[in-house]
Amino acid sequence: MPFVRLSLRRGHPAPYLRALSDGVHRALVETFGVPEDDRFHVIDQHAPEEFVYDPGYPGVHRTEDFLLVTVTAGRPRDTPTKDRFYRRLAELLAASPGVRPDDVMVVIQTTQADGWSFGRGVRHTAPAPEGA
Amino acid sequence: MPFVRLSLRRGHPAPYLRALSDGVHRALVETFGVPEDDRFHVIDQHAPEEFVYDPGYPGVHRTEDFLLVTVTAGRPRDTPTKDRFYRRLAELLAASPGVRPDDVMVVIQTTQADGWSFGRGVRHTAPAPEGA
Amino acid sequence: MPFVRLSLRRGHPAPYLRALSDGVHRALVETFGVPEDDRFHVIDQHAPEEFVYDPGYPGVHRTEDFLLVTVTAGRPRDTPTKDRFYRRLAELLAASPGVRPDDVMVVIQTTQADGWSFGRGVRHTAPAPEGA
Repeated sequence: MPFVRLSLRRGHPAPYLRALSDGVHRALVETFGVPEDDRFHVIDQHAPEEFVYDPGYPGVHRTEDFLLVTVTAGRPRDTPTKDRFYRRLAELLAASPGVRPDDVMVVIQTTQADGWSFGRGVRHTAPAPEGA
Repeated sequence: MPFVRLSLRRGHPAPYLRALSDGVHRALVETFGVPEDDRFHVIDQHAPEEFVYDPGYPGVHRTEDFLLVTVTAGRPRDTPTKDRFYRRLAELLAASPGVRPDDVMVVIQTTQADGWSFGRGVRHTAPAPEGA
Repeated sequence: MPFVRLSLRRGHPAPYLRALSDGVHRALVETFGVPEDDRFHVIDQHAPEEFVYDPGYPGVHRTEDFLLVTVTAGRPRDTPTKDRFYRRLAELLAASPGVRPDDVMVVIQTTQADGWSFGRGVRHTAPAPEGA
């Protein structure tokens, strides 16, 4: 909690992907209160014909480095917390690996708290209020 | 808003994929009131062993052209609106690229309205009631 | 209903993938009351740099066989039902293809009941209380 899926075009080297994952994780730790070692990211790389995105909606300018970040969280966050995440994520990815803020799109989904098992066939129960 | 993921078997040419994306987008514009330039689609192509689907549940007949369309929307739609989407999508994909209606499966998910950033590190705020 | 996505590292042979899918489906049939022929699974195989997971959070030990199972269900299940699913899934995958229970992570999401079309452009209406 949370689980993150990153979608982008094929052709970015492994260090670039690692920097993306690091930035997303750092932003989640800082703004969502996610534990440092609670990190589960899947990266999907797509051919151009498999990744369709409008270059300008709504009033931004996207390039071939467009990144779609889908976050599935185990508990809701309020709007100010989400706002901090959007802002911090854009800052961190601009610093490394150098993604323009216009190229970072985010979608946040939430599950029920009892919808997670981290292994051993048992449901996860959050150890602390900020853990999710 | 919305974000769409299309899953199908590998081996379809780019124009086929483009027609799928066009049909899904057209159906969303017509029935969900999505803006014309609000289009974000990811297409996942799978080897046969990576794409497992029952050929007949519940009472349809699926082929190797089976298409799974997952729509993640930023606000709820009522049942009649979803019904119009299902029907229109099947019509449009039957016309182009020629997918049989039995081969089109849809799953619709909804996020909270504040769960979207289209870039620049800021939350999206819908400009009009029909924008979502 | 439900729809399942399995994520793991590349390099597992087709019989291994089939056993994963069989185990997930069996666990859903036994614990969620899913019909025998209601089976829709997508398997995503990733290069190491595309699949980032903490090896130990929270107190388990993950290997290169780590498996992330995302279940999207059409109606909610209560906590005891989810608990039975987690436990049974771990048992079945340990038996075949031999995945350690520490390597099985699960995330369950739920949609609205009217968010599913299995084909023919029409909404799915569950035929029985246990069908979903």
